[in-house]
Amino acid sequence: MVTMRDVAERANVSIATVSFVVNGSKRVSPETRARIEAAIQELNYRRNVVARALASSRTRILALLHPDLESRPNATVIQFVMGAAHGARERGYDLVLWPVNDDEQMSHLLAGGLVDGVLLMEVRIRDPRVERLLASGVPFALIGRTEKDDLPYVDIDFATTIERAVAHLRSFGHERIALVTQRTKAQAGHEPGRITRVESAYLDAIAPLGAPPAIVAVEGTSAGGREAASVLGADFPGSTAVILVNEGASAGLVKGSRALGRRVPEDLSIISAATTRELGEMIEPALTVMVAPAPELGRLAADALIDQLEGVQDAPPHVLIPCALEPGQSVGPAPTG
Amino acid sequence: MVTMRDVAERANVSIATVSFVVNGSKRVSPETRARIEAAIQELNYRRNVVARALASSRTRILALLHPDLESRPNATVIQFVMGAAHGARERGYDLVLWPVNDDEQMSHLLAGGLVDGVLLMEVRIRDPRVERLLASGVPFALIGRTEKDDLPYVDIDFATTIERAVAHLRSFGHERIALVTQRTKAQAGHEPGRITRVESAYLDAIAPLGAPPAIVAVEGTSAGGREAASVLGADFPGSTAVILVNEGASAGLVKGSRALGRRVPEDLSIISAATTRELGEMIEPALTVMVAPAPELGRLAADALIDQLEGVQDAPPHVLIPCALEPGQSVGPAPTG
Repeated sequence: MVTMRDVAERANVSIATVSFVVNGSKRVSPETRARIEAAIQELNYRRNVVARALASSRTRILALLHPDLESRPNATVIQFVMGAAHGARERGYDLVLWPVNDDEQMSHLLAGGLVDGVLLMEVRIRDPRVERLLASGVPFALIGRTEKDDLPYVDIDFATTIERAVAHLRSFGHERIALVTQRTKAQAGHEPGRITRVESAYLDAIAPLGAPPAIVAVEGTSAGGREAASVLGADFPGSTAVILVNEGASAGLVKGSRALGRRVPEDLSIISAATTRELGEMIEPALTVMVAPAPELGRLAADALIDQLEGVQDAPPHVLIPCALEPGQSVGPAPTG
Repeated sequence: MVTMRDVAERANVSIATVSFVVNGSKRVSPETRARIEAAIQELNYRRNVVARALASSRTRILALLHPDLESRPNATVIQFVMGAAHGARERGYDLVLWPVNDDEQMSHLLAGGLVDGVLLMEVRIRDPRVERLLASGVPFALIGRTEKDDLPYVDIDFATTIERAVAHLRSFGHERIALVTQRTKAQAGHEPGRITRVESAYLDAIAPLGAPPAIVAVEGTSAGGREAASVLGADFPGSTAVILVNEGASAGLVKGSRALGRRVPEDLSIISAATTRELGEMIEPALTVMVAPAPELGRLAADALIDQLEGVQDAPPHVLIPCALEPGQSVGPAPTG
C-alpha cells in the first residue's frame, strides 16, 4: 500500500507537508500543493477513505435517499438537499445522492458498506423504507415524519404554519378559508406525512370559524393549479381565501382563478405556504408566501444524523421549525356580500 | 477484518446468499435479506468500499463540484445534478455533492482519495479549478466549456439554440431582436463559458439582419428581470423581441415590461432559452421556451467521466445538444410602425 512517506518522497517535501494538504489543516503554497497532488495521483495514494474505514469501520459518507427530483424539480426540495450537503461538509462528512429507492437499490445501499448513515426525504405516514432502516440497524434521520413520533426527525412545523396562515387571513376578515394540497398516487396510509399533518392542522385552525372545511388535492403542476381553481369555484364558491401547500400548483391556481373571473386578491386571497420567496415573486400578483426553512432543516438533518454517529446525543433529535410569513400582493380584505 | 463468512455465520445463511445481497445480483426473500443486513450492521462489515479501494485503488465515487445552489436554486441546474446522479448510479458509481469549491476544499478533495473522478459545473472561460484538476491528474469531465475545446465536456449547443430562436422570431416578422443574459460578478475572462458563447452565437445569428446588437445582462432574479425591461425600454426601444437566457429573470421581464406599458406578445415577443417548460408555464402569458436538455446532459457527463475511468474511450468526449423549442403564448407578430 502506498504511504504518505512515498508521496512525500515523490513530491520532494516533508511528510508533515503532505499531511497538511491531505487534511486541509494548514495552508501550503500553490506550487507545493500542486506537486503533492500530482504525486498523490501518480502513486494512486488513497489515504482517507481506506485508512479511515480500516481504522474505524467508518467511511464518513452519508446517503440521501430522495424521490425522483429529476422529473419534478421543486425549489424547496432542492434547498433541503443542498442544506444537508452543506451541513455534512461542515462536519467533515460527504453526502451521496442516492436517486433510486426501490427495494433492490436499498439493499445494495444498506449492505454495501459505503455509508455510515442515511437521510430519508419525502417520508410517508407508513414508510416501508423506514422499516427497512430500522431492521438493518443503519443509523438514519428523517426529513419529515412517519406516524410514529419517536424516530429522529426534522420537519416543518405545519401546525404553527397553518395556524399563522389562518390568523393572517382572519385579520383581513376571511372566514371561509379553503386548503389546496398535493394529490398523491400513494395508497391510503402511505401518503407523505406532511399532507396528513397539513390537513389536520388546517382542520384544527379553522374549527373556531365554524365553517365547513374545503380541501382540494391536485397535482403539483400548473395544470393541477388550474384544476384547483375550477374545483374551488364549483364545489366551494363561498371560500374567499386559499391556503396553498403545493408550490408547483401556485401559478396555475392564480391563472385559473383569473380565467374564471375571480381576481386575486379582490375576489380570492391566496397564501402559498412551504415555498420560496423567489417562486412567489414570479407570479402576478406576487404571492404572500410562508417561506419553508428548508436550508436550515437540511443542515439540521445532517447534524441529527452525525450526532447519532458520533454519540453526541442520546435521545433522538426532534426538530420542528414553522414557515415564516412574507407578505406579497395576494392577500386582501375579504369581499363583502 | 470482518469477512463475508462471518456475516453468513451470524445470519445463518450461505456465503453465496450474503454475496447476492451485497452485490444486488439476485433476489433474496425479504426475511433473509433483513437478517443479513442486520448481521452486516452488527458486525460492522464494510466490504465494498474498503475491499474495492484496496484491490483496485478505486472507490467508484464521483464528486460533483457545483456552485452554491442553496442560495440560488435553479430548475435547470438541478436537472443537471439529478441527471448526473442517475447516470452514475446506472453504471454502479455514487455521486457525492461537493458544495464548497474554494481552494482549500478543492485540495482536500483532490488529496483525500475519496473520489475516482470529478464533474465540474458552471465552468468559466478561464477556470482555475480546471487548471487544478489538470495539474492533479484526477480524471474529470465538464458540464460547460472553458475557452479550450480539447477537454472532455458536455454542453448545451448554444450556437444552434440561438440560431433557431432567431429564425423563429424572424418567421413572425421580427428584425430587431435583443438578448438578455445573466450578469456575473466574475472578472473579465472568468465569466461562465455559456455567457460568452451565448453572446457570440447571438451576434452571429443577428448579423444577417443588419440591425445593431442589443445585449442586456442582469441578475437572475425577478428584480433583474424588471431591470432588463427598463433598460430595454430606455436603451433599445426599437427592439420588438427578446431572447432571454436567464430563466431566473423571466417573470420579472414580463412583469416589468407590462408595468412600462409593453404587452407580451403584442408589443414585445419573448423566447426564454435554456430553461424548463414548467417554469415557462408559470408565467402569464405562458412563455415560448427552448427546453434545456439538462437531464440528458447530466447523464452524459457522468458517462463521459466513467468512460475515461474505465478506459472505454481514448478521445475526450465532446457532446453538444441544442435546446428544443416549445411554443407558448409569448411570441406574436412583430408590431408594425
